[in-house]
Amino acid sequence: MTNDSSFNLMDKIISLCKRRGFIFPGSEIYGGLANSWDFGPLGVELKNNIKKLWWKNIVFQREEIVGLDSSILMNSKVWEASGHLQNFYDPLVECKQCHNRFRLDSLPVSPADPEKKQDRLSCPLCGGELTSEKKFNLMFKTFLGATEESANAVFLRPETAQGIFINFKNILTAMRGKLPLGIAQIGKVFRNEITPGNFIFRTREFEQMELEYFVNPQEADSWFNYWQTERLTWYDSLGLKRDHLREREHNLEELAHYAKKCVDIEYQFPFGWSELEGIANRGDFDLKNHSQFSGQDLSYFDEKSGEKYFPYVIEPSVGVERAFLAILLDAYAEEHDENGDLRVVLKLNSKLAPIKVAVFPLVRNNEKIVKKSREVFNLIKSSFTCDYDVTGSIGRRYRRQDEIGTPFCLTIDYQTLEDDSLTIRERDSMNQVRVKIPEIIGWLSQMFNS
Amino acid sequence: MTNDSSFNLMDKIISLCKRRGFIFPGSEIYGGLANSWDFGPLGVELKNNIKKLWWKNIVFQREEIVGLDSSILMNSKVWEASGHLQNFYDPLVECKQCHNRFRLDSLPVSPADPEKKQDRLSCPLCGGELTSEKKFNLMFKTFLGATEESANAVFLRPETAQGIFINFKNILTAMRGKLPLGIAQIGKVFRNEITPGNFIFRTREFEQMELEYFVNPQEADSWFNYWQTERLTWYDSLGLKRDHLREREHNLEELAHYAKKCVDIEYQFPFGWSELEGIANRGDFDLKNHSQFSGQDLSYFDEKSGEKYFPYVIEPSVGVERAFLAILLDAYAEEHDENGDLRVVLKLNSKLAPIKVAVFPLVRNNEKIVKKSREVFNLIKSSFTCDYDVTGSIGRRYRRQDEIGTPFCLTIDYQTLEDDSLTIRERDSMNQVRVKIPEIIGWLSQMFNS
Repeated sequence: MTNDSSFNLMDKIISLCKRRGFIFPGSEIYGGLANSWDFGPLGVELKNNIKKLWWKNIVFQREEIVGLDSSILMNSKVWEASGHLQNFYDPLVECKQCHNRFRLDSLPVSPADPEKKQDRLSCPLCGGELTSEKKFNLMFKTFLGATEESANAVFLRPETAQGIFINFKNILTAMRGKLPLGIAQIGKVFRNEITPGNFIFRTREFEQMELEYFVNPQEADSWFNYWQTERLTWYDSLGLKRDHLREREHNLEELAHYAKKCVDIEYQFPFGWSELEGIANRGDFDLKNHSQFSGQDLSYFDEKSGEKYFPYVIEPSVGVERAFLAILLDAYAEEHDENGDLRVVLKLNSKLAPIKVAVFPLVRNNEKIVKKSREVFNLIKSSFTCDYDVTGSIGRRYRRQDEIGTPFCLTIDYQTLEDDSLTIRERDSMNQVRVKIPEIIGWLSQMFNS
Repeated sequence: MTNDSSFNLMDKIISLCKRRGFIFPGSEIYGGLANSWDFGPLGVELKNNIKKLWWKNIVFQREEIVGLDSSILMNSKVWEASGHLQNFYDPLVECKQCHNRFRLDSLPVSPADPEKKQDRLSCPLCGGELTSEKKFNLMFKTFLGATEESANAVFLRPETAQGIFINFKNILTAMRGKLPLGIAQIGKVFRNEITPGNFIFRTREFEQMELEYFVNPQEADSWFNYWQTERLTWYDSLGLKRDHLREREHNLEELAHYAKKCVDIEYQFPFGWSELEGIANRGDFDLKNHSQFSGQDLSYFDEKSGEKYFPYVIEPSVGVERAFLAILLDAYAEEHDENGDLRVVLKLNSKLAPIKVAVFPLVRNNEKIVKKSREVFNLIKSSFTCDYDVTGSIGRRYRRQDEIGTPFCLTIDYQTLEDDSLTIRERDSMNQVRVKIPEIIGWLSQMFNS
């Protein structure tokens, strides 16, 4: 795929998202707000389906993993112990003339003296002199209670993981847990990024799906490998093309302050290979630090070995919006239909599709057909998310459903009035079959579970 | 129910919640944080089930209502237009001596001169003189971007509703919507309450389930009545006892700045009748103001009547945590079991129960029984959230499941090895039946759908 067509693809996705109600620019009527995005009627369903499938795979179908929903606002000592107050920053330089700020590592390197590039560089916007580098913490700060004093400062969490670590002991006790023990969480996080961008790829407010998997330190490496395989398998199960995914291990300079090892699962986005999910071995960094800072013992007593130790933690962590974007990009296709006309189709895994079934009366002015169509719609809607459309030709209605990834369209026509059968048309193959109405629910259930 | 036993009940619920992993105090290892709470392994499932049932009832099963998931951080002009910057405050007085702050309306009234009570009152803590009343905005403020300048100030949303109003036009267009049109949203909101309390009843961070139902102004009253009935029916369907619910209309002084009428659905909490859900007629306040402040026309063209107008909005709005608390309180029961021993049982609607089925091998030291039990567990877990327990007597295992509201316990015993049948024990009646293993999924499905 050439760069041109890639960027073209991104534009097409953004346009489709707005036009069909997947994603709207945030605060659009007020001119927007710093690359924020709102998930519309179809977007919220796709997003919920991604989260539901992750939760099913990670929590419901496994015995040793449980869920958690901890607060966004936590005691500030959490961020002292986790190292975020000290280490979670972007290095910024400011132009003394126009006062714009930049990440030093985003400025072009001077080939003559790459080590001291800051001294030699000038503002890329106005050419003015740059200040020396300053630390800029990425956490959003706010104040709890009636006064804005530093004693009342709290932070919006930049990751859900810490909520898991500080609840480790409570969960272990309540669930009578034993290692390996996983705790999973889905929730909003906030990072005051200087350069958000690429549509929903990097935003200041986003959702994480994080698993913290607590293990015996001696088994950490093998569990790391296990989760690498598991997570790739999950993306396979969603239908992402295998050659659009690759693994990339962080080198020492890149590693986060808490990590012993990290492998990114990268997706080939139109703007290049970029992180979709990070899998980290956090070692015992977090439990140890929280024990030290809180004075509470968060170590684990291993009944089998009789030892007491801080578990290591393997963390597969996904950004929901990144998964959303990768899924849309992977599903998008332009094809020619049976008449040679261009059709845009989202070849979404049917479990992800926001609308599962659309119901069409062939004509809108035949009372019997319309009545029958309403009956079918009412029959289906308690089992499957369902759309009802009477506007335009059947071909046009198919196009509309193709574009949003609806797997099956049901058309009620004159024959229906005679033999109680209707036409089911499948999205990708465009094949049509006739099925009797009483068999519809069973037929659809079988297709969605296969 | 006397006051004593009521407060007793609240204590029992809080204790059960912590012990069994429903709810833990937030940031507990650091001494907590201002009445914040984290939802543990069972709590997150119950909370998700409440949200799922609301979404199913409001969005999936209705044709004219769609969902939305808008950002928490929005352009600050949203809060100017909505009136929150000006009107969403608590009136506070400060003690000049000890500097504690109080809501004026929480201080005892002087019978001699109720109109001027502030002049006559002294600090309830130290007796010091009080300042005059000052407005204290309930929105949390933070800063976007690299500098903490007022131009960069943004607020954590105190309600999800505004995200719906500013997306009204985008959704109307994308979904080709017509009135009545409902837009539903579930999400976190934040209010810097001075006096949070009563467990999860009033917290600074909580989740709302809000529906904004846009209608022709002339039909607003009848739609208001419609939603009042609908919402009560929903609580019925969850199994809340009807005599624990009542409706109370706001008087003029109570009405929020945007509301034409408001009726609360109140629940009889142990601390008194209190709001569970508010149903408001917001009139055209929001769409009109956002049109004015943004310069975008958010009015609606009615094709039927040929008129253009600002729709009125009927808003049923629930706090997820309040629904959670009411459901737990309503389900909690202490009974005597078949041996006359006290049993604590959560009589949760089976759709709400965090664990649907528990699987017990009768004994843990019979390999065949354990193997069979694992088979049953694996068979069931992809259809129902499932627990596996081998610890202690069967009676004790029943007690543990009763206490968390698990509707069905399955026991695999010696007879299972002979005829492939197992015992199913129902939570509320404690009745037991034997069912063949191949029929289990069908049997359970029927029970959960009835």
